[in-house]
Amino acid sequence: MSEGEFDIIDRYFKRLNGLESGVVIGIGDDCAILDIPAGHQLAVTTDTLVSGVHFFEDVDPYRLGYKALAVNLSDLAAMGATAKWASLAITLPDVNEPWLAEFCRGFFELADKYQVQLVGGDTTKGPLSITVSAKGIVPTGQALTRSHAQVDDVICVSGYLGDGALGLAAKLSDTKIVADQQPFIDALELTEPRLTLGQQLIDHASSCIDLSDGLSQDLMHILKKSDRHAQLHLEHLPLSEAILTEIDSGHLSLSEAWQYAVTGGDDYELLFTISKHKLASLRMRLSEQGLSLNCFEIGVILDPNNSPLTGERLGFTHLQQPVTLKKTGWDHFK
Amino acid sequence: MSEGEFDIIDRYFKRLNGLESGVVIGIGDDCAILDIPAGHQLAVTTDTLVSGVHFFEDVDPYRLGYKALAVNLSDLAAMGATAKWASLAITLPDVNEPWLAEFCRGFFELADKYQVQLVGGDTTKGPLSITVSAKGIVPTGQALTRSHAQVDDVICVSGYLGDGALGLAAKLSDTKIVADQQPFIDALELTEPRLTLGQQLIDHASSCIDLSDGLSQDLMHILKKSDRHAQLHLEHLPLSEAILTEIDSGHLSLSEAWQYAVTGGDDYELLFTISKHKLASLRMRLSEQGLSLNCFEIGVILDPNNSPLTGERLGFTHLQQPVTLKKTGWDHFK
Repeated sequence: MSEGEFDIIDRYFKRLNGLESGVVIGIGDDCAILDIPAGHQLAVTTDTLVSGVHFFEDVDPYRLGYKALAVNLSDLAAMGATAKWASLAITLPDVNEPWLAEFCRGFFELADKYQVQLVGGDTTKGPLSITVSAKGIVPTGQALTRSHAQVDDVICVSGYLGDGALGLAAKLSDTKIVADQQPFIDALELTEPRLTLGQQLIDHASSCIDLSDGLSQDLMHILKKSDRHAQLHLEHLPLSEAILTEIDSGHLSLSEAWQYAVTGGDDYELLFTISKHKLASLRMRLSEQGLSLNCFEIGVILDPNNSPLTGERLGFTHLQQPVTLKKTGWDHFK
Repeated sequence: MSEGEFDIIDRYFKRLNGLESGVVIGIGDDCAILDIPAGHQLAVTTDTLVSGVHFFEDVDPYRLGYKALAVNLSDLAAMGATAKWASLAITLPDVNEPWLAEFCRGFFELADKYQVQLVGGDTTKGPLSITVSAKGIVPTGQALTRSHAQVDDVICVSGYLGDGALGLAAKLSDTKIVADQQPFIDALELTEPRLTLGQQLIDHASSCIDLSDGLSQDLMHILKKSDRHAQLHLEHLPLSEAILTEIDSGHLSLSEAWQYAVTGGDDYELLFTISKHKLASLRMRLSEQGLSLNCFEIGVILDPNNSPLTGERLGFTHLQQPVTLKKTGWDHFK
């Protein structure tokens, strides 16, 4: 290997940070020093992607760089935060410059889109693994949490469900489970963090989470934290053109599509609860601002003391009839 | 494996965070939400430890948990920051509960000592690796950096040099290089982050860095950033009782000891530059506060336009005579 750690950091990761972004000291000292504007709190999240667990060893490095940041920005979006800064800890088996260049292109393309500054990190040698810690700011006291879902709130989701999980299933399966797997792999690898919507949800949504482990499992976090029950209406689950095409052509049944949508994971959409009244005001505000952002209504929050569900927090209906679905989401250690 | 990811997180990593620590929302939501007190900036650092690279696979998990946090707190100390919060991204090959319990005991023992709250992280499956991101606060505009070393400043170090490197060498070597390797292995694995001294250096030191890659290499960062030269006086390098004992018993020569002290790495002491006047005032302040903290004077900052060094920034002397020493530090990719 011809290059040292510091050369790599200099060449690929060090870029000029604007002072206007709150970066007082960026890469190149022991710590980054950051300014938090008055009236704001800091939002912090960390996610690790491990080769062979979260991505395939032959993954396109552009897409890996993109996704390593995207999953963290998705967490910031779920709190209603404005993304500001990121640290990147990358462990590499060796120095492969074309690979690194592509990784950085993916990472910085997304970072630039949302004005996120890379402010530090660590470059180490070992099995390929990426840990990003993203930081954002949120108006003091207004962060969206998982804990305040209210009875009769509408449950909404910011985009199509199940595509990412189908992409993963297609990559893992020896047999052909869809006619055209590319749109699903794209959904898996090029998720869009819903930062703009998240910021609009402040003052409107009663709770919010991002969908990483699957609709059912992630909704359960809201239900437990808020002590609520919920019912999801399968006929309202938003399915993409790509899924509908696979259903039409007979490669996928509707109930298989629902199963992917409910338990699949890797959607990285926002799941939020909101009163009917606030949802109307949100839709008006989005329309006034010319923001064409999706808010699909997929269910309702129920009072646990006055709930039709017996013995469980979460139920499903299809055209108002109860339906049973598997609810398990992704768990690294199971 | 009998336990899921969320159970592990709940059992080992989730502890009650006091609101007084600025933790508005801790572990258990999409992000942590943190309050930065008025008049302060955020200091952020990230360090990764990889099995087989930064530690031996059979490492004592207590010491690993301790050190994963210690190296990050050392970076905060180098900026003069007060440590406040940490995120822990841990990748585990499997769930070994006694191992995890010991890891957490080491991590939290150090965290508690400096009132550091664990506010988030990620638990993933894969080759053992730990990424900690530590956060602290520093009075606005007063963070210590690498860039303001002044001509005639004294170069100081906060503790003994070379012990950690000797510990590593002893573990790596097939032959016996010291009579008693335990104190050196302890120095390697149980470094003390110099947070208290770092905070005292604000308003006093002109530049500061923590020694992770070796005195020579880390001092070079200050010299490059500050555009200065420097001379280190070998007879003033602080050597521990353990090293002096090895020298006395003939296991180690003095020049070998100097070589470890200058290029060894893993000291995690603070290296700082300070005017003679401010050093006197610092010593008085430490004494008034009853703080017995080491400030060993080991060299001097020189004007590059009026320097006895030819062709290099850093020179060494022994009893005022120039000496040649190897200067290379640790580099993961070389």
